[in-house]
Amino acid sequence: MRATPSGPGTTRARSWWGWGYTDAHPDDTECAAMGALVPGTLPRPLPVPRVADLRIGRPRATAPPALADRITDDPGVRAAHAMGKAYRDVIRALRGRPGRIPDLVARPADERDVADVLHWAGEQNVAVIPFGGGSSVVGGVEYRGDDHRAVLSLDLTSMDRVLEIDTVGRSARIQAGALGPVLEAQLRPHGLTLRHFPQSFEFSTLGGWLATRAGGHYATGRTHIDDFVQSLRVVTPAGAGESWRLPASGAGPSPDRLFLGSEGALGVITEAWMRLQERPRFKASASVTFADFGQALDAVRTIAQSDLTPANCRLLDAGEARMSGASHDGSAVLVLGFESATAPVDDRLTTALELARAHGGKGRPRKTDPDAPVDAAVSAWRSAFLRMPYLRDGLARMGAVVETFETAATWDRVPTLIDAVRTEVAAAALKATGHPATVNCRLTHVYPDGAAPYFTVLAAGRPGDEVAVWDDIKAAASDVLHRHRATITHHHATGRDHRPTYDLQRPHPFTLALHAAKTALDPHGILNPGVLIA
Amino acid sequence: MRATPSGPGTTRARSWWGWGYTDAHPDDTECAAMGALVPGTLPRPLPVPRVADLRIGRPRATAPPALADRITDDPGVRAAHAMGKAYRDVIRALRGRPGRIPDLVARPADERDVADVLHWAGEQNVAVIPFGGGSSVVGGVEYRGDDHRAVLSLDLTSMDRVLEIDTVGRSARIQAGALGPVLEAQLRPHGLTLRHFPQSFEFSTLGGWLATRAGGHYATGRTHIDDFVQSLRVVTPAGAGESWRLPASGAGPSPDRLFLGSEGALGVITEAWMRLQERPRFKASASVTFADFGQALDAVRTIAQSDLTPANCRLLDAGEARMSGASHDGSAVLVLGFESATAPVDDRLTTALELARAHGGKGRPRKTDPDAPVDAAVSAWRSAFLRMPYLRDGLARMGAVVETFETAATWDRVPTLIDAVRTEVAAAALKATGHPATVNCRLTHVYPDGAAPYFTVLAAGRPGDEVAVWDDIKAAASDVLHRHRATITHHHATGRDHRPTYDLQRPHPFTLALHAAKTALDPHGILNPGVLIA
Repeated sequence: MRATPSGPGTTRARSWWGWGYTDAHPDDTECAAMGALVPGTLPRPLPVPRVADLRIGRPRATAPPALADRITDDPGVRAAHAMGKAYRDVIRALRGRPGRIPDLVARPADERDVADVLHWAGEQNVAVIPFGGGSSVVGGVEYRGDDHRAVLSLDLTSMDRVLEIDTVGRSARIQAGALGPVLEAQLRPHGLTLRHFPQSFEFSTLGGWLATRAGGHYATGRTHIDDFVQSLRVVTPAGAGESWRLPASGAGPSPDRLFLGSEGALGVITEAWMRLQERPRFKASASVTFADFGQALDAVRTIAQSDLTPANCRLLDAGEARMSGASHDGSAVLVLGFESATAPVDDRLTTALELARAHGGKGRPRKTDPDAPVDAAVSAWRSAFLRMPYLRDGLARMGAVVETFETAATWDRVPTLIDAVRTEVAAAALKATGHPATVNCRLTHVYPDGAAPYFTVLAAGRPGDEVAVWDDIKAAASDVLHRHRATITHHHATGRDHRPTYDLQRPHPFTLALHAAKTALDPHGILNPGVLIA
Repeated sequence: MRATPSGPGTTRARSWWGWGYTDAHPDDTECAAMGALVPGTLPRPLPVPRVADLRIGRPRATAPPALADRITDDPGVRAAHAMGKAYRDVIRALRGRPGRIPDLVARPADERDVADVLHWAGEQNVAVIPFGGGSSVVGGVEYRGDDHRAVLSLDLTSMDRVLEIDTVGRSARIQAGALGPVLEAQLRPHGLTLRHFPQSFEFSTLGGWLATRAGGHYATGRTHIDDFVQSLRVVTPAGAGESWRLPASGAGPSPDRLFLGSEGALGVITEAWMRLQERPRFKASASVTFADFGQALDAVRTIAQSDLTPANCRLLDAGEARMSGASHDGSAVLVLGFESATAPVDDRLTTALELARAHGGKGRPRKTDPDAPVDAAVSAWRSAFLRMPYLRDGLARMGAVVETFETAATWDRVPTLIDAVRTEVAAAALKATGHPATVNCRLTHVYPDGAAPYFTVLAAGRPGDEVAVWDDIKAAASDVLHRHRATITHHHATGRDHRPTYDLQRPHPFTLALHAAKTALDPHGILNPGVLIA
């Protein structure tokens, strides 16, 4: 499969405008085939955009001599750092109207370089946008506005080493710019893994995960990257520092938790001690089908409230199950997986299946043979999961509008919320395009007290106006989440696209504290301006 | 047993100067018997101190008329709010030299009262010390200094109701002033429990747990009160607000985590939505003995790094095991307990015992009969655990010095740290008193990447100078923890006693942010001055 992680040392070309590797992109024929399934799309795909066709202005600032070999104004590099990888970003590139292209791109080799860049930028009123893998889908790495003399993208990916490993306590000091496969390759010889596999795993960095509070591999229990942080090192315009390596502490509010989720607006995370795990030796998975989605929700809640802690517990609604090939008869599918480095997990799977059956689910336990092929529905879903962003870009080339957004809410609100999103977002898409839209839902993470629904919206475009259609859909989605008091993001971060809704969600005392912290740490207001807080 | 939780509605008298209920205090004969075991203590116990013997000045401020029925200047009430319940507090009361007695004690009935008190105090430069159960052992509820016109203790215990229960998502909105037994009694009819049982359970409040990041029942996994918070409501001098009820969120840095551990210095936590659990139906426990403490540490680490997640996994060193009656032959004892509301836990206990035996431990699994008496060592340890603070006060009456302190460190540092604490703290106590001291250790909480050692120091006093001896021991303990980069507190909080060391441990960028937040939220500097930050 083309989207398989290829590890470090790869020479595959990354796309400057779309997801991932260029050689994994659907070709024109595939694009056209997909487009034919969505009413109202273009007759043929938009051409793949070229940097040479962009009008890229001369940089408005010049790198200081001391940093000249760390900073480039190469147009191709600048274009590749102009935006993240939201649909909104992809379609703007396809339409030849990308966001503000940064004037400079810095690739610091070490923390000293980072501090020097921040110092220079503060003096020169240059906005600094920390940039990891560039996979933001919320406008997190794009400059909007006009308050700064110039814009510099601070690409951390040259700082990608695992610096120390503590095999006794299973943790490692890792530089923030390491992409997923790069850090895992360095941990593997020690028999350890961070085991954090967001959908963007290949194209996102540790620092990005930390700055956005990424949600990871596990569907239950500790899954947010926050839980795996032992210590953070942060460089701010007002000074640098690191928390102590501790398994836990009650000494004042957690210093790390202020920087986790700060999206580059309070400081640049340069490295972290991360908690690691042994690779699992025992695995078992199964899928369960449900004729009724409400019963499926009850089953998942019961499993989430048990202490079985499945590693995977993803519920696909009928549309999502059909799209990923996990079912074709209109049933919802629950993908269950257990894993352990300690003991067999078959009993846990059996108990989970009993709970699911008690709520009308149909499924059987499977043998725990590591070499056995996994359940076909599980396998189909996994493949689709990694391939999805590539297909999204193929659909974008056909002028379709694709939006994915996610949230979390307590169980008492989940059923109503999902219904409301389906109804209201589909209505907004219909109004914007004149064509019916598809709104699918899956639960990506579940908790004893609630769940994280993830929505995929597929709609026709309005040729040339795809951004406006997307904006209408996004506004409708944000509004319905807000009215249901569901968070504006569970793991995609707030960026610039979610800022207005995030501002409404944030409690007043914390807003005051965050404002004060921002002013203290970033007195010139150069750090990722526009995200988090004014 | 006298220290058994007695639930709400109790009419047992609370001690104003010592731990818990007066009727559970050791009598003179018991005190003398304990004192006889510690060389250099007094021949007979110090008398139980009386409020009538204190010189309590007239209050330096008068309650405003609107709050007159919520604020008292009764000397007995004021005396009972002067200090926490550290040894240092108890011995000062016994010696007739308590800390600064507050001028007024407020007992707000609702959040409006809290806001009104803060408003008035800000105008009048009156320091406000939030007060829950008053069980602080780190000088967390005591005014030190002279920058304020008067001091008001803000006792939250009249706000003690469970306001709402969500049985679907298992959570409840609980007022911050509810003591442990008071909140559990309100949850019990719904079959739910917060299951947070710190040693101070009977005498500490939800708000106190949250403000100090209390460590709770579970030895592994989610145990800090932080993990059970769904939403917090906070009143600050700059305004009030609450976070949304969410199972998880990636929208910006966690707003709750700034107030968790803020020890009343950033705002007053008035209520919280807390995640609840079903009561466990399956339990199994066992004890394992180890001739070698180093091997015991390895065994515990292996269990902590498995996914067995024992509810109890407390390792007692030989001295601690002897003191609690868990063993008498010089062996260390590992107390293991499993519990579940989902499925039997015998297999998990069996696997844990196998891991322990592989490191030289001796122990057998026990039957999971809920009516069967628990393992004798487990039972002895549990009784001693709840009785310990009462015995400490009895020893204080004999002029002995007792200090307990706790920390956490990564596994690579744990063995050296424990050795260093034993050696250096014992040396400091010997130097201060001329008598050899006992330093015992247990691990209260264990993590895949480290552990939380808890130390008990028992030393002779220096009649009349017990506070000075305690201060010397505290200084030695804080110094050795700091040098080993072990946190100054895992779950006791920083208060005023740990402030100097906490200041050294806190990362520079977070110090800047915290200063800024303090100024923004508490512009008059009235909230618990002296803790957390200047």
